[in-house]
Amino acid sequence: MRDSVAAEKLSERDKKHLWHPLTQHKTSPEMLAIARAEGALLFDEDGKKYVDGIASWYTCMYGHCNPYILDRVKKQMDTLDQVVFSGFTHEPAIKLSEELIKILPRNQEKLFFSDNGSTSTEIGIKMALQYHYNKGKKRNVLLAFEEGFHGDTFGAMSVSGLSVYNGPFEDFFIEVERIPVPTTENLDEILNRLKERLQQNNIAGFIYEPLVQGAAAMKMHGAEGLDQILALLQKHEVLTIADEVMTGFGKTGKYFASDHLRHQPDIICLSKALTAGLVPMGLTTCTEKVYNAFYSDEVAKGLFHGHTYTANPLACTAALAAVELLQTDEIQQNIKNIIGWHQDFNKIIKDHPKVKETRQTGVIYALDLNVQMERYGSLRNKLFEHFMGQGVFLRPLGQTIYILAPFITTKEQMERIYEAIEKALEIV
Amino acid sequence: MRDSVAAEKLSERDKKHLWHPLTQHKTSPEMLAIARAEGALLFDEDGKKYVDGIASWYTCMYGHCNPYILDRVKKQMDTLDQVVFSGFTHEPAIKLSEELIKILPRNQEKLFFSDNGSTSTEIGIKMALQYHYNKGKKRNVLLAFEEGFHGDTFGAMSVSGLSVYNGPFEDFFIEVERIPVPTTENLDEILNRLKERLQQNNIAGFIYEPLVQGAAAMKMHGAEGLDQILALLQKHEVLTIADEVMTGFGKTGKYFASDHLRHQPDIICLSKALTAGLVPMGLTTCTEKVYNAFYSDEVAKGLFHGHTYTANPLACTAALAAVELLQTDEIQQNIKNIIGWHQDFNKIIKDHPKVKETRQTGVIYALDLNVQMERYGSLRNKLFEHFMGQGVFLRPLGQTIYILAPFITTKEQMERIYEAIEKALEIV
Repeated sequence: MRDSVAAEKLSERDKKHLWHPLTQHKTSPEMLAIARAEGALLFDEDGKKYVDGIASWYTCMYGHCNPYILDRVKKQMDTLDQVVFSGFTHEPAIKLSEELIKILPRNQEKLFFSDNGSTSTEIGIKMALQYHYNKGKKRNVLLAFEEGFHGDTFGAMSVSGLSVYNGPFEDFFIEVERIPVPTTENLDEILNRLKERLQQNNIAGFIYEPLVQGAAAMKMHGAEGLDQILALLQKHEVLTIADEVMTGFGKTGKYFASDHLRHQPDIICLSKALTAGLVPMGLTTCTEKVYNAFYSDEVAKGLFHGHTYTANPLACTAALAAVELLQTDEIQQNIKNIIGWHQDFNKIIKDHPKVKETRQTGVIYALDLNVQMERYGSLRNKLFEHFMGQGVFLRPLGQTIYILAPFITTKEQMERIYEAIEKALEIV
Repeated sequence: MRDSVAAEKLSERDKKHLWHPLTQHKTSPEMLAIARAEGALLFDEDGKKYVDGIASWYTCMYGHCNPYILDRVKKQMDTLDQVVFSGFTHEPAIKLSEELIKILPRNQEKLFFSDNGSTSTEIGIKMALQYHYNKGKKRNVLLAFEEGFHGDTFGAMSVSGLSVYNGPFEDFFIEVERIPVPTTENLDEILNRLKERLQQNNIAGFIYEPLVQGAAAMKMHGAEGLDQILALLQKHEVLTIADEVMTGFGKTGKYFASDHLRHQPDIICLSKALTAGLVPMGLTTCTEKVYNAFYSDEVAKGLFHGHTYTANPLACTAALAAVELLQTDEIQQNIKNIIGWHQDFNKIIKDHPKVKETRQTGVIYALDLNVQMERYGSLRNKLFEHFMGQGVFLRPLGQTIYILAPFITTKEQMERIYEAIEKALEIV
């Protein structure tokens, strides 16, 4: 009996009890079973290999099962697995804080841990709301970009302008006001409208994905317009919350997307590549000014938020090893190489008749097809199947194809991705 | 320079950049640095040892750094660390689903993964809301227990009746209606009021901690009243959501608190002991009936919720090893032993003049002191310091002292906890 179960394919056994995220199981019933992973490669249960062109949702930037990271985490597992982080502390969290502070934008001083990107933005929002509350000011409006995406819990969903199938939950959202992403054309209007709006003195915080909006299909905007918006908001004591869950840790060519700007955020949200694809962790960092608004003889002015596994020692150890790798000459050189390869590929592909637009920020490269597609529609699925057939894991977002491969991807592996994209243009 | 940093105590280095959860740093500036852990013991940076009397927030139930679990997770780390769980699957998630289904209440059929307890309840709430929405029914009210606690993200905070310092966020809460926890005295009134209320046909779901309300200081209620409430709600197609984040996995003497009831929930939320204290993971399970409401040719009827590390292979591997351990004769016998030891201790302590009330469900034992205390006040801190001085980690919740030690705690270790509690009664 057990043998017959073991002989059944994983992809079949999957169907019995698993409900997958972001999936309509009736129209997309098949899940490919991945058996192992190494570097930039995934291997399915039949042994077929795939280049992980999106680093498993932008997490495994130093490669899957990186031995440098694994060795460190295995040692930590033998020492301390988990302890309550309220009243207690431990070396992995302390060392990580010391090393992260060195590479974070210089105004960041304090770190508040949680478990994923959604919780990191919820905490950012709570910091902004309570900051004003603790100062005795009633500010109960949040500002966000149209088409921003900040997570799937209720607070995070509320600030996300990109609402794919959010219908059932809209009655339960926090009220949020939105502004368009700045362009050279609309910037003056945005600033003028904001100046007027700010007279009401009730905007607590502004949450934004700096430079690249990931879930909106890697939409990109320049630093200059965003900088002017941040300057205006900070003048009116609106706390600025940079959601760098996707953009953080080297992907934009600098350590953080905020490093491209002159005005640094009050709060930064991090996750994904933070732990190098090993285990989940979220992190919300902030300035001394934000922290000080909570530091008080009144207990109630503290931030009474906490998840059980906050600052899990294994996750902190993975993150510390990742921060070390990020700063090595090897990884920094690889990042430069990938940026150059994308630029060369772009020259070849950008004028293709099926290509509407291309864009690049650091190692993030995206192209929009000249074809209308639904976000979860059949043409999108056909493209996905094409890429997998070519041994390349890319995950088209509607009509957008994008690459966000691990920093350790070789030139040969990246060329396999480029070729698969060129072939894709023939079938759409 | 590096040596001088290394020589500084961890508890001092902690103060520079770390913002701890549920902490007012000005009134509680000292964090104890834990260097290692083994079985039921924690060791601080000076080598002093403590019995982990609350299993690091009810997670490490099989003991810290359990070699059976570590070996399995280390092997998994060398094979597959992480892969997107949308479109893909993997053996650790599949095996875990197959084994969990065998011990979950029999009506549970599908598993939806996330990263912590808050996300597991947010997903339960979203399932309940969208279930009715997908059937074309407008049901936009949630029901919850007074003093329930379900997490710290906005959706989870909204359903939590226990609002410690939630002032800054209350304008942003989902509207929730509350009922008291049932007692023999109030049950008829609760049922009568509910019957009338249900005529409006707009309650989507009811979220509750079955039998033991953890954050409300281990308040306990009987199965009979809850069973009658569940029966009435299910008759009116209100989805019942059991938050077993704290009570799950053997703590009540059965695998799940819901196993003590005749009426099984439509949805169950799990986390904490799920991964045996190794890494964070959340899980929301549900019946075929719930799942079928999302299974459709219309893509939009799917549950478009997803976290990046959903069903992380390392977390699934830890959880699978934990589910195996839970079912061993050794752990089941240890659970029975602990239940007996608590009962014996209770006979000694329950009539002490400083003791107002004692209660026990499975391995969860709680006593209320005959003394008024603030939840985060100075007497509470004095008690905490007393316990730590005695080499016992207990975390009083206001005037309640409770024990929820690992299943592998020895009789000698448990007696150390009992003695520390007896001594505590002399100092309050």
